Amino acid sequence: MNGIGQKARQASTLLAQAKRQAKDAALLGGAAELRKNAQSIMAANALDMASAKAKGLSGALLDRLKLDDKRVEAMAKGLEEVADLADPVGETMAEWTRPNGLLIQRVRVPLGVIGIIYESRPNVTADAGGLCLKSGNAAILRGGSESINSSGAIMDCLQAGLRQAGLPQEALQMVPVADRAAVGHMLTMTRYIDVIVPRGGKSLIERVINESRIPLFQHLEGLCHTYVDGMADLEMARRIVLNAKMRRTGICGATETLLIDRAGAATHLAPIIRDLLDAGCEVRGDESVRAVDARVVAAQDEDWNTEYLDAIISARVVDGLDEAIAFINRHGSQHTDSIVTNDAARAEKFLNEVNSAIVLHNASTQFADGGEFGMGAEIGIATGKLHARGPVGVEQLTTYKYRVLGSGQVRPG
Amino acid sequence: MNGIGQKARQASTLLAQAKRQAKDAALLGGAAELRKNAQSIMAANALDMASAKAKGLSGALLDRLKLDDKRVEAMAKGLEEVADLADPVGETMAEWTRPNGLLIQRVRVPLGVIGIIYESRPNVTADAGGLCLKSGNAAILRGGSESINSSGAIMDCLQAGLRQAGLPQEALQMVPVADRAAVGHMLTMTRYIDVIVPRGGKSLIERVINESRIPLFQHLEGLCHTYVDGMADLEMARRIVLNAKMRRTGICGATETLLIDRAGAATHLAPIIRDLLDAGCEVRGDESVRAVDARVVAAQDEDWNTEYLDAIISARVVDGLDEAIAFINRHGSQHTDSIVTNDAARAEKFLNEVNSAIVLHNASTQFADGGEFGMGAEIGIATGKLHARGPVGVEQLTTYKYRVLGSGQVRPG
Repeated sequence: MNGIGQKARQASTLLAQAKRQAKDAALLGGAAELRKNAQSIMAANALDMASAKAKGLSGALLDRLKLDDKRVEAMAKGLEEVADLADPVGETMAEWTRPNGLLIQRVRVPLGVIGIIYESRPNVTADAGGLCLKSGNAAILRGGSESINSSGAIMDCLQAGLRQAGLPQEALQMVPVADRAAVGHMLTMTRYIDVIVPRGGKSLIERVINESRIPLFQHLEGLCHTYVDGMADLEMARRIVLNAKMRRTGICGATETLLIDRAGAATHLAPIIRDLLDAGCEVRGDESVRAVDARVVAAQDEDWNTEYLDAIISARVVDGLDEAIAFINRHGSQHTDSIVTNDAARAEKFLNEVNSAIVLHNASTQFADGGEFGMGAEIGIATGKLHARGPVGVEQLTTYKYRVLGSGQVRPG
Repeated sequence: MNGIGQKARQASTLLAQAKRQAKDAALLGGAAELRKNAQSIMAANALDMASAKAKGLSGALLDRLKLDDKRVEAMAKGLEEVADLADPVGETMAEWTRPNGLLIQRVRVPLGVIGIIYESRPNVTADAGGLCLKSGNAAILRGGSESINSSGAIMDCLQAGLRQAGLPQEALQMVPVADRAAVGHMLTMTRYIDVIVPRGGKSLIERVINESRIPLFQHLEGLCHTYVDGMADLEMARRIVLNAKMRRTGICGATETLLIDRAGAATHLAPIIRDLLDAGCEVRGDESVRAVDARVVAAQDEDWNTEYLDAIISARVVDGLDEAIAFINRHGSQHTDSIVTNDAARAEKFLNEVNSAIVLHNASTQFADGGEFGMGAEIGIATGKLHARGPVGVEQLTTYKYRVLGSGQVRPG
């Protein structure tokens, strides 16, 4: 593992100085290799699928693991899209001249070496690897044991792209051993890894949080709320709630808890709840919500703290905006929360006081996505407060240095 | 300790929404209280000094602990200067409109609760507390046991300022117990503290790095280099090296190691080394440097990794720019490094490839300071790569959130 770390650190110094053209050539070369080797990637994936089935993995896990023509093409296209993004490295973020003539520039530079720890989805290999490469970072990837053959075949393509572009293939490396100890070791490699990005379920992320000696970009969960204010337009609220919950139930920006202002409940509650029920969503409600429709089941205490990632929503009536804000700050995960209202002052208060990475007014929480923000692909959504908050795209995978240009200045006094 | 944490978290939600006027009033009120209570602060300090002397603390430590009229006035003035700084909170850092009409704003918000762990200097109480307050954060301060009476008296003034301004006095709290266990407890309070700023010697910072479960803004040491290139102007190089080492030897931006290009050694080496020796600096050199003057002593291996914080410098001749860059990246602490040269291409290469928070061309490393950068007061200089790098001022004590303003948008597909 330390050998991998040393090679990554060395490669990172070359990557940091690499021109955009070389990095993009490596990304496009990797995409071409993925297409050219689609058959052998799928053959490697078949090995992983067979052993996963033999181990009795669940259908959902098998689906995440599975690669087909469409998914290989999506990876290749993803790399091409990342190549199209602006290169963040070298951008002058700010510059100013001091009275003594010193010119101070804050300039974007890569973070260095990024560790990616993920589970069964082999496509993370290409998606995360591509973002690290574009942002001038080396990466060490540690995928799940279930996907080791698939991820290895994908990594071969990425490394071929690096070589073709004249960049060190050690800029992207896969941890070859799939044992859990490798993860533990990675999390202590403070000399060789600058930041860890865990991608996976709650138990993986909790383990990484507990063990890591390296800073993390992570989100533990997306416990997102939609608050329908008494001053909400009913039709807009219906449309937004249904979309926020049901467009895709398995993504982190899906709404998990619906809060409805008591002041609007008489008109708004029933139609919104019935929309959800009619769309096949299970509604777990408080007493007021249950009174609306016999299909609503009683919410338990833990429902207000649960990320379902499924066609289930918890719903309750609250006494106005202040209670909604307090409830979200107490039960939410500081990910994404939305207010539906036609009252500008209430919206402003919600946006200011809800302490989440993303706060929306009159829009669906499902917009919590780097692509939807116009940032291109993302490596995840960070719910921590430091460095990167919200979608983590190529810009968030950089840091800065100060360049100070003088003409012989010395400091007086 | 958890009680302090809960109160700080509560206060932080009020501070985050506080108007600039209220925060500045609290800072100015605190300054006035410091001046009004200067006598009782110095009386409290006399208790600390007596017990420190009884414990046999060193002269340098006693000097850091000591408060006099001038130092109390400096604290008061510092708070007034922080009040004068622009309020970073609420600033729209970027905004853009998506094709679907969503307006996305990245807006600066406070981090939340900041933990400050420091040693004997009681003035850190006011300096760090003021910066946290200005940036809308609550702070929990844990000073050294030697300064507990002094720091407590200063904190009383800051809290009086908060009360007078109608802000919760729990926005700034002092840990009342001075035992080491309190630090250990603080470092695990992930629910109540968002970031820890350690201020002190290497052993304190190493302990914090090892034990903290909370992200840190820290610098372990300032092992700064000045590289005198073969193309350097001799008079400029002499002026810069002497200032970089000797202006103040105890600050983190002081140069600790001098590298001289072999190509310029014949002309540049002797005068630069003699300047240092004549100014009373001990020079620890390699063979080439020792050949210049009999007063130069032989450098040992550990000299290349030592932050002296004293009138001592290590000096060696290197074979050109590449060796200088490699040496700095291997031995430095990624704090601040400078090149003196009249060759623009070499300067550019140095600025790009030296992997430090601050890189300078033709200027003294002693400019590594938030005030000199025009950022106002700083809470320290961060040598980590995440979030804050270089001087940590009020802006670096903030994070951001995304505000997304819609008109009923739902996400398609």
